[in-house]
Amino acid sequence: MNTSVFAHGPEAQTADVAFLQDFETMSGFGATARGGVDRQAATAADIAQRRWLAGLLEAEGLRVEYDRIGNQFGLLEPTPGAPYVLVGSHMDSQPTAGRFDGAYGVLAAAHAAFRLARRWRASGETPRFNLAVVNWFNEEGSRFVPSMMGSSVYTGVLPLEDALETRDRDGVSVRDALAGTGMTGDGDGPSAACSAEIHIEQGRLLENGGITIGLVTASWAASKYEIVVEGEQAHSGATVMADRRDALFGASLLVAFARRLADEFPGVLHTAVGKLDVYPNSPVVVASRVSLLLDLRTPDEGVLAEADARLAAELDRIRAEAGVDVEARLSHSWGVNPYQPEGVELARRSARDRGHASTEILTVAGHDSINMKERVPTVMLFVPSVEGVSHNEGEHTRDDDMLAGLDVLTDVVARLAAGQLNPEEAA
Amino acid sequence: MNTSVFAHGPEAQTADVAFLQDFETMSGFGATARGGVDRQAATAADIAQRRWLAGLLEAEGLRVEYDRIGNQFGLLEPTPGAPYVLVGSHMDSQPTAGRFDGAYGVLAAAHAAFRLARRWRASGETPRFNLAVVNWFNEEGSRFVPSMMGSSVYTGVLPLEDALETRDRDGVSVRDALAGTGMTGDGDGPSAACSAEIHIEQGRLLENGGITIGLVTASWAASKYEIVVEGEQAHSGATVMADRRDALFGASLLVAFARRLADEFPGVLHTAVGKLDVYPNSPVVVASRVSLLLDLRTPDEGVLAEADARLAAELDRIRAEAGVDVEARLSHSWGVNPYQPEGVELARRSARDRGHASTEILTVAGHDSINMKERVPTVMLFVPSVEGVSHNEGEHTRDDDMLAGLDVLTDVVARLAAGQLNPEEAA
Repeated sequence: MNTSVFAHGPEAQTADVAFLQDFETMSGFGATARGGVDRQAATAADIAQRRWLAGLLEAEGLRVEYDRIGNQFGLLEPTPGAPYVLVGSHMDSQPTAGRFDGAYGVLAAAHAAFRLARRWRASGETPRFNLAVVNWFNEEGSRFVPSMMGSSVYTGVLPLEDALETRDRDGVSVRDALAGTGMTGDGDGPSAACSAEIHIEQGRLLENGGITIGLVTASWAASKYEIVVEGEQAHSGATVMADRRDALFGASLLVAFARRLADEFPGVLHTAVGKLDVYPNSPVVVASRVSLLLDLRTPDEGVLAEADARLAAELDRIRAEAGVDVEARLSHSWGVNPYQPEGVELARRSARDRGHASTEILTVAGHDSINMKERVPTVMLFVPSVEGVSHNEGEHTRDDDMLAGLDVLTDVVARLAAGQLNPEEAA
Repeated sequence: MNTSVFAHGPEAQTADVAFLQDFETMSGFGATARGGVDRQAATAADIAQRRWLAGLLEAEGLRVEYDRIGNQFGLLEPTPGAPYVLVGSHMDSQPTAGRFDGAYGVLAAAHAAFRLARRWRASGETPRFNLAVVNWFNEEGSRFVPSMMGSSVYTGVLPLEDALETRDRDGVSVRDALAGTGMTGDGDGPSAACSAEIHIEQGRLLENGGITIGLVTASWAASKYEIVVEGEQAHSGATVMADRRDALFGASLLVAFARRLADEFPGVLHTAVGKLDVYPNSPVVVASRVSLLLDLRTPDEGVLAEADARLAAELDRIRAEAGVDVEARLSHSWGVNPYQPEGVELARRSARDRGHASTEILTVAGHDSINMKERVPTVMLFVPSVEGVSHNEGEHTRDDDMLAGLDVLTDVVARLAAGQLNPEEAA
């Protein structure tokens, strides 16, 4: 088959310019003064951007629909009745985030679909599968926990009702936040035959290696803990120190332990506490309760087991030193989790055919494709992040890397639409 | 002069029952399920309670008025034109607080005024000064920082406009919170000649010594720091550990240091971090900014100097270990700060005359009387706290201790109203 889509010439240049212009427009939604974005799920900026995306998709002849959790789909249906190649990412962001995380992948998916639509119209070719561009709802999880909410509901990992009842810190539920936006539907979304996602690396490996395309082979193993430290309220001045059971002291010991633990496994253990809430959080009250989320991530399952054990032992030590109760619940746990090797090979061929250097890479961060690959054959691609900076307003990916990624993604999606990852009998 | 006010007999019993009944009623405002209260400044519960107090004061013939920051005064004016003995405390509370902190002192002040009003009516006696029962606005500072706001404005320590523009975490200003309550006035409140406050100890010394009345001689020395730790946002999974500048890690090292520092000065150094806020506080983002309030308190100014120096050195160590910037601003600093010795002697005589054991004691916690004593002669009394528990729903003071405190306070106020702390030439 011919996978050369706008390989060269003025038409290709026009398509690239169109992508970059749309990327610029897109980055205006929720733009921050320091060059980043703030588009937390179902906020005004997120909704406005989704409305803009719907218009963009419709202008190119795609039909826009939503499922019950607010995932946004742009459907291109050259083959009525066939299942879909789902290709996309998410456009919501952290509170002060970069312009590229997620949003690049959705716009690249849209433009890949636009290019293939033109190509199929021009050639009269009928692909085996239809295309669905997807903008997953609430991947970031900063306003509504958990993250990867939309793809988790779509893939059946998270019950719809649980997701809709999730509340932000002001008590607003997902259901209420989506009500009146016109961005929920009655169905469960298009039926997927296979899927693809492209994303910025959020690390330094591609940049350090001078390589444009990452072929994601697996996700790191991880243990995610929800931890509650319980002490007792007391006057922060008057209460004698020996009587205090300070939940914030206990929590602080835990944060410091987690950071230092990573140093014992250099390069193969990432640890973090990003979210920590203090109650009552008053200047003159010893805290009675601190809740926090602690992550351990590693490409080595043996290291994970060791880190889990070290953490459990430390909790006992902290209970004793701070006189607090500590409850740790393992909320998520997974091993090193591979993508289908056939998808990695397919992507390798696409990169080679399009003339871009590629390398296998693991993903440390979670992505919606991690949910999708449990259901259907899934390809995950990375493009370089300058200096690995991410979840930061200074996040950056160069234009030529974005365009190379779009070029390879378009080729991958063409192959997926042709059924290269789906044996004929499954059709 | 005769300082025996309802010393015995059925009339005294009736007055004591009335106080305990009022205390019970008062504790219903903002009552929590576990026996405490939640009456943060200018919330519905605080306003409702103030309305109730106004009714109680007016029913006994006091005139209720407010100053521009919402301090509530109940005026008893047997001597028109004379300045006032200001006697009271605060009725606002921490989010989950005890029933006694502050509220006991306001109600005791009100009942002391009721008793003296009856006595003066019965005897025809005209005191040198009038009486003003005061319920200071926002002593706790949990909703609006700083604490002791109302008395700070009254005494000129805090500009009125700064106080009115202070905002809670939802962005509501003090001005807006008070608007429409009818609880602000046009003036600066009654002119004080001297003042008194009674409060629960919030420590164990009185209980351990079997002593009913604490004669507060001074407040502990203190350094209060506003600290901001600045790191850089990063992906909490993908970013390599060596690239992270984790503000929460830096802040946690500081919290742990502060707690352990206290153990190096057993009994003479209290340290605390009660309030700590993380930004952006998302599960998957390394925090870029943590702000926290750190207190050092001690009865020994030498220890304070040493603790300040140790803290400064630790900040340098933390900057290096966590790769963060740390800015520490000394927002409040004071030495061991005495109450007027003549006031302590006056209170000692009152306690002895009323038949209650007393002892000198320092206050570790801040109180509105610390502001007042900088302006006028001021007496501060303590009654015991069971097991020293405070800023906790389990806070408790026994009925007989509350009644003994009221009895002594009444005697103290009678002496103050007679001018015992004010030389005649100042009248």
